[in-house]
Amino acid sequence: MKSDTLTADPIYQRIAERVEGLIAGGTFRSGDRLPSVRALSRDWRVSVTTAVGAYSLLEDRGVVEPRPRSGYYVSARRLSPERLPRGNEVESDPVEVGCAEITEKVMDASATPGIVPFGAAVPADEILPSAKLAALYGSVIRSAGPSAHQYSMPPGLPALRFELAKRLLGSGIAVSPDDIIATSGAIDAVLLAVKSVCEAGDVVAVESPTYFGILSMVRELGLKVVEIPVFSDRGLCVEALAEAFASHPVKACILQPNFHNPVGSVMPDAEKRRVVALAKQHGVTLIEDDLYGDLHFSEKRPLSLKAFDSGDTVIHCGSYSKSLAPGLRVGWIVPGSRYHRIKSLKYATSLANATASEMVVAEFLKSGGVERHLRKARRIYARQTHEIREAILERFPGEIRVTRPEGGFLLWCQMPEGFDSEAFALAALKRKISVVPGTLFSASCGLRNCFRISCGFPLDDHSRRAVGILARLAEG
Amino acid sequence: MKSDTLTADPIYQRIAERVEGLIAGGTFRSGDRLPSVRALSRDWRVSVTTAVGAYSLLEDRGVVEPRPRSGYYVSARRLSPERLPRGNEVESDPVEVGCAEITEKVMDASATPGIVPFGAAVPADEILPSAKLAALYGSVIRSAGPSAHQYSMPPGLPALRFELAKRLLGSGIAVSPDDIIATSGAIDAVLLAVKSVCEAGDVVAVESPTYFGILSMVRELGLKVVEIPVFSDRGLCVEALAEAFASHPVKACILQPNFHNPVGSVMPDAEKRRVVALAKQHGVTLIEDDLYGDLHFSEKRPLSLKAFDSGDTVIHCGSYSKSLAPGLRVGWIVPGSRYHRIKSLKYATSLANATASEMVVAEFLKSGGVERHLRKARRIYARQTHEIREAILERFPGEIRVTRPEGGFLLWCQMPEGFDSEAFALAALKRKISVVPGTLFSASCGLRNCFRISCGFPLDDHSRRAVGILARLAEG
Repeated sequence: MKSDTLTADPIYQRIAERVEGLIAGGTFRSGDRLPSVRALSRDWRVSVTTAVGAYSLLEDRGVVEPRPRSGYYVSARRLSPERLPRGNEVESDPVEVGCAEITEKVMDASATPGIVPFGAAVPADEILPSAKLAALYGSVIRSAGPSAHQYSMPPGLPALRFELAKRLLGSGIAVSPDDIIATSGAIDAVLLAVKSVCEAGDVVAVESPTYFGILSMVRELGLKVVEIPVFSDRGLCVEALAEAFASHPVKACILQPNFHNPVGSVMPDAEKRRVVALAKQHGVTLIEDDLYGDLHFSEKRPLSLKAFDSGDTVIHCGSYSKSLAPGLRVGWIVPGSRYHRIKSLKYATSLANATASEMVVAEFLKSGGVERHLRKARRIYARQTHEIREAILERFPGEIRVTRPEGGFLLWCQMPEGFDSEAFALAALKRKISVVPGTLFSASCGLRNCFRISCGFPLDDHSRRAVGILARLAEG
Repeated sequence: MKSDTLTADPIYQRIAERVEGLIAGGTFRSGDRLPSVRALSRDWRVSVTTAVGAYSLLEDRGVVEPRPRSGYYVSARRLSPERLPRGNEVESDPVEVGCAEITEKVMDASATPGIVPFGAAVPADEILPSAKLAALYGSVIRSAGPSAHQYSMPPGLPALRFELAKRLLGSGIAVSPDDIIATSGAIDAVLLAVKSVCEAGDVVAVESPTYFGILSMVRELGLKVVEIPVFSDRGLCVEALAEAFASHPVKACILQPNFHNPVGSVMPDAEKRRVVALAKQHGVTLIEDDLYGDLHFSEKRPLSLKAFDSGDTVIHCGSYSKSLAPGLRVGWIVPGSRYHRIKSLKYATSLANATASEMVVAEFLKSGGVERHLRKARRIYARQTHEIREAILERFPGEIRVTRPEGGFLLWCQMPEGFDSEAFALAALKRKISVVPGTLFSASCGLRNCFRISCGFPLDDHSRRAVGILARLAEG
């Protein structure tokens, strides 16, 4: 039974997905007894037959197993030991960002056909809403006429900003369409935010590890960084941030509070509240990159950091590059009091975004199709992330530690000290497998014993073999 | 008889367009006798009836007039006196770029519906190949499947770069697809070029006047500028550039050698050759923005500056924002030896371009549709530019001087010293007409007596009335 399809799902499939989400999210662990068929039928208001159908589907997938006269249990082969990465040491003084050389090689490889793309933080082709997008490009552009081909000058199309404002309510952000500027993806948004706050030579706080695109940007802007450790269970270390604020003239902190790249962590609400208060107290601007926030495995979207900011401390940035499609280049920024500065920076850099993309996303949002797509994408990512994590733990040397994210589709893997992830990544490339070495995520070229694995695509026979090859390479 | 249509044109229409092009290009001046009907029929190998048809069409349009027993003449009402702008004084020492305040107001106004957009350097809706683009978005995206929605990572789609390489041959540039990086329009390309050469505090040479987007960019990058005057008949003043190179540590010069914005000038080949030699001698990088080069009124495209560079002196930048459609955001850069630096800068700033746009432009180029569109767009711009120039000269105070460009669709208007184009532009906005004041084109807030008029749209009754209103405002 094939379940990866993005077409209509009968009720028993939805129940199965929900149960699977609870397992992926850790509510039910390996070996746990699951709710009885009767309980399921009662809770979902469906027939017993439908409830049995849901469990049968999960049984087909190897997620659950029936035990005679006892009920359904989480499969033993889904065993996932608590081997989470340990925190890493960081340099506490501001440093200039080093080691970019390998980035281009890794990025190029990720875009090369025929490579098993564990290095590319992108959705698999099958997950993209391609048919829907193609239909929208056909219909929306035709009916828009010439306006689809004129400039969409900053702040971007009103129809798009209207839909974004509605959607941001779900992240806890209440703003009007006029408070939003459309951008070319999140990286454009973060760049505009940083430039609106910092000048060359300034100090910014970044997470360690952090997305290497942020480090490249910071290097290009001539900024110095203090690295703040990120914990896999609660995100950015607020104590370390407080210390950095006390010791250095930090102008801004760039952070990913929800489903952090690469760690996958979410800051609990209390931590978000603390970090906003702390930044406000020190007059530091928080630049939030909420790129992965919509890809939560459990029922509820985590709130954005901006939701805890009653003032002007947080600049919120987001994008549909991960949650809808990378090629769209549709992102946004909520710049607060820096609105005019950022709008004129947008004029002076990329000028405008692709108008057709903005129209297509606006219509996709308006139709409700985005939320429908996300419901399915989340389920797929939850499963893929879980399965690839399991495969890694099963095949790699026993010392490996792997994050267990609650959203997004990235795994952060930690080998013992001494492991050289750059040599590992280069050896993997020779076997036509991409992974991203940990050094790329560190301003100070640390994290050499770590690497990032993307679970944007399914664990099929091909990628399962690739995990095996990586495991052998890791053994050295 | 309607001739603005972009549909198939019979032979007599094409002859008429050619004759009109020669008039717009200055080969035949007001009052000149045109080739006889017999000569036209011989040269084009068509019947005398067809040749008469061509002249009749031009007569309908008011371009030519018949004189009994003598033949056809260029209409007297197309009289365009040689009232070209005079050269302006510039500051010879490097300055920081000032006066950005009015830019946002003017840019916002240009995008406002209901405004007569003399300020917006964009094609009118009617000129855009909207139906063709809509059809391409429909078909190309559908047949590409998921790849239309994945990242198009730097250097951009191979199919696009292949078509660009073929097309660049027409500008005298012989490069392989692998020598090209796709960008988000020309502004992105120029920004990447400047960043690959300059650091904050460096001196760059810019034209005076120059496109205000270049000045905004230079200001954001913290560069100092020396301004080099531009002549309407030959473009950048090479002598002044030589002096600047001799007196200041100029790192790069940003210039628009073909159909300069706002002056419309083209550097003659000899001048292009001189400026490349001069820059090479001083080790200065020339950053060529060839955005308008395809919009030539006469038969032949001017060569790009890069065509005169056998080495690594010129970085060539271009875009389809003016010649096809602004909303596409498809541009390119030929970075020479700075290829890897610029590719990694692209990763660190906007990351990728909109994939669908790149696919649509690649297919449009491949089909030959781009060249077909350009043939018609050139003719339309030639006529519009000519007609709007005539209307300005007719209605404005006699002291006004206006450029007579041979391509593009911009006019640069010069009033006597003391004229305040900012006050003029703000007064015009109140009457729902946008124009761009000269100060925006000057790093040192000069050129106050000048303004730019875009001829991207036709001179109809509405815009003709707007010219009348502007003329009265200019009288003060």
